[in-house]
Amino acid sequence: MRSNRLEAFSDGVLAIIITVMVLGLAVPDGVTLESLVKTSGLGLLTYLLSFIYIGIYWSNHHHLFQLRPMVDGGVLWANLHLLFWLSLYPFTTAWLAKTEVALVPTVVYGANLLCAAIAYMILQTVIVKRPGGGRLRDALGHDVKGRLSPVLYALGIGLAFVVPWLGLVPFVAVAVIWLVPDRRIERYIRSHPDDEA
Amino acid sequence: MRSNRLEAFSDGVLAIIITVMVLGLAVPDGVTLESLVKTSGLGLLTYLLSFIYIGIYWSNHHHLFQLRPMVDGGVLWANLHLLFWLSLYPFTTAWLAKTEVALVPTVVYGANLLCAAIAYMILQTVIVKRPGGGRLRDALGHDVKGRLSPVLYALGIGLAFVVPWLGLVPFVAVAVIWLVPDRRIERYIRSHPDDEA
Amino acid sequence: MRSNRLEAFSDGVLAIIITVMVLGLAVPDGVTLESLVKTSGLGLLTYLLSFIYIGIYWSNHHHLFQLRPMVDGGVLWANLHLLFWLSLYPFTTAWLAKTEVALVPTVVYGANLLCAAIAYMILQTVIVKRPGGGRLRDALGHDVKGRLSPVLYALGIGLAFVVPWLGLVPFVAVAVIWLVPDRRIERYIRSHPDDEA
Amino acid sequence: MRSNRLEAFSDGVLAIIITVMVLGLAVPDGVTLESLVKTSGLGLLTYLLSFIYIGIYWSNHHHLFQLRPMVDGGVLWANLHLLFWLSLYPFTTAWLAKTEVALVPTVVYGANLLCAAIAYMILQTVIVKRPGGGRLRDALGHDVKGRLSPVLYALGIGLAFVVPWLGLVPFVAVAVIWLVPDRRIERYIRSHPDDEA
Repeated sequence: MRSNRLEAFSDGVLAIIITVMVLGLAVPDGVTLESLVKTSGLGLLTYLLSFIYIGIYWSNHHHLFQLRPMVDGGVLWANLHLLFWLSLYPFTTAWLAKTEVALVPTVVYGANLLCAAIAYMILQTVIVKRPGGGRLRDALGHDVKGRLSPVLYALGIGLAFVVPWLGLVPFVAVAVIWLVPDRRIERYIRSHPDDEA
Repeated sequence: MRSNRLEAFSDGVLAIIITVMVLGLAVPDGVTLESLVKTSGLGLLTYLLSFIYIGIYWSNHHHLFQLRPMVDGGVLWANLHLLFWLSLYPFTTAWLAKTEVALVPTVVYGANLLCAAIAYMILQTVIVKRPGGGRLRDALGHDVKGRLSPVLYALGIGLAFVVPWLGLVPFVAVAVIWLVPDRRIERYIRSHPDDEA
Repeated sequence: MRSNRLEAFSDGVLAIIITVMVLGLAVPDGVTLESLVKTSGLGLLTYLLSFIYIGIYWSNHHHLFQLRPMVDGGVLWANLHLLFWLSLYPFTTAWLAKTEVALVPTVVYGANLLCAAIAYMILQTVIVKRPGGGRLRDALGHDVKGRLSPVLYALGIGLAFVVPWLGLVPFVAVAVIWLVPDRRIERYIRSHPDDEA
Repeated sequence: MRSNRLEAFSDGVLAIIITVMVLGLAVPDGVTLESLVKTSGLGLLTYLLSFIYIGIYWSNHHHLFQLRPMVDGGVLWANLHLLFWLSLYPFTTAWLAKTEVALVPTVVYGANLLCAAIAYMILQTVIVKRPGGGRLRDALGHDVKGRLSPVLYALGIGLAFVVPWLGLVPFVAVAVIWLVPDRRIERYIRSHPDDEA
């Protein structure tokens, strides 16, 4: 079963998630820079953060399916499971910004990030277990970033109980470590040119 | 006539339906878990339910067109007819959540689910009647799930008149029986490898 | 230049237009059927009408590009011009429903429909003039529906000045005559099998 | 690495940006042409302007990837960076219209346009530096329009400090010079037919 329709659907969902978050931004009533910062400043910052997360997931998802894994019902639903958690980002992001990084909204935001990271690991595991998935396992190697991310999200949730703002530090750290582009799969394809389906 | 553009358009519509429902969720004013549960709890639950329904339709739609059926004007409109009913899910879901599962909104929600199920059966029938549709008929077999779903939706509508909440039980049951992935078409393709166009 | 990206982009825009109109529907505050009809009845009817229009444009657009016309800058912008008018449907539809079919909103809605019809004719003309466009001209034949639609839209605008509701009659008539699927291009492809690129 | 998924994702994001701006338009309460002009006139004009900008970016993006450049992590993120600035257009456009072209909103709108133009230049530069990018460099030639656009945006920002409305003149000028379709890449492909991947 080809994966192109799964990719097209995921692209659509991710494109919408990344875009509709802007609809949640309150447009200032005032005409000054202060009113912009006050009404939308925090919203813009959290939008940027969530935009980067979705961009990372899209980029990794893109790499994941480049090795043309086998797609069956299990992969379809592991993928929908991931998309479900990502689809909640606009909601949890909006609450975080609206409450100006209060305790519970920060924890809920972190839990949303954590669930998405776990869903991604499940999707990866499901694909690796399919016939031909060994190539993806080889390409991923130790998957340091993939394993570190949920740990950092959990750390952020913990730190939020000390000071809510502090919880954002490990969240931002995840974005930063992933922004350094992941060349594992690109490298694998380059060194195994005959392998690509 | 190739079906890829019909698939791409349907993917787009389904991706949007599945995602924009989040836009309908009210963001809590408070900063506590109680305010989240009170403001958005029911909305999140009904969102989850509708997300699963749309996921099921996408997954089945994906299987339906895997056998590369002939696409003509009749198939185009049977498909648009299905998309119309699915496009109303965000609206009927929002009303259901807003009224906290009152009688009429539950019945209207059930009627929406029922109309979509009937539209899907029409689409399936139209495709089966086209040249080459016999392969799809063979793959579907007795189509127990497909025939059971509208019955359960109708049952839910009936039960809602007893107690509105009770009507949701058969609705949830439909989601559960479909979540067990439908392997019929995958099995058919595997056992008829030469048949794929 | 291949047309697939133009098609994919148009599919995306049309999928969004057709779907976001639902977001404009007001969710009733009440729990009765009366409150549904009162709050959303007219909105649902005009949504259905606009859904059918967008469905017709998508279906015709799909047929238009099936003959694989040459795509250059002129075609790109004629297509964007069409998408612009179609993108205003959610706005003019919402005004029509909100004002319960008052005079000016009906005229503006009709003008929107008329501009889209003219934009479609321009797109068709631009494609016919490109090298290889003769095949599309042959397939279109007398294009009775295409020529009749703007006339009916103009008639509806005129009738709206008598009684606003009366203006909707020719608008609905256009939807009805197009719902009878257009088999010209399918017929042309079937009778010129060697011609398809 | 193929570029089709990058193109599909960008098409999705651009299709949504171009369409959701309509959701931001306030539907008039009144039933007269005056109420339409008063409530939505400026919104419609700024929508038209931003629609043209997004159309231009889509059209140029389409040309950029027609030469099938190499796509790696750097190109992915340069592309996401461009999409980020474009995704803010609905927000800055809404503020511009809401404040009836006040000073700061005009400057912010111009800054948004400028950042997108710079992001586009970065994307172009990143692609040119990849293996095989020389063909794009040849096709672009002196890139007069591409170099002129940021200058005009900066000029508009400057003029806004004199009279806010005056700042819009160079902004509109950019739209006009790009609407004259860019035939460079089409010409290059036509004169180097063997070169297309």
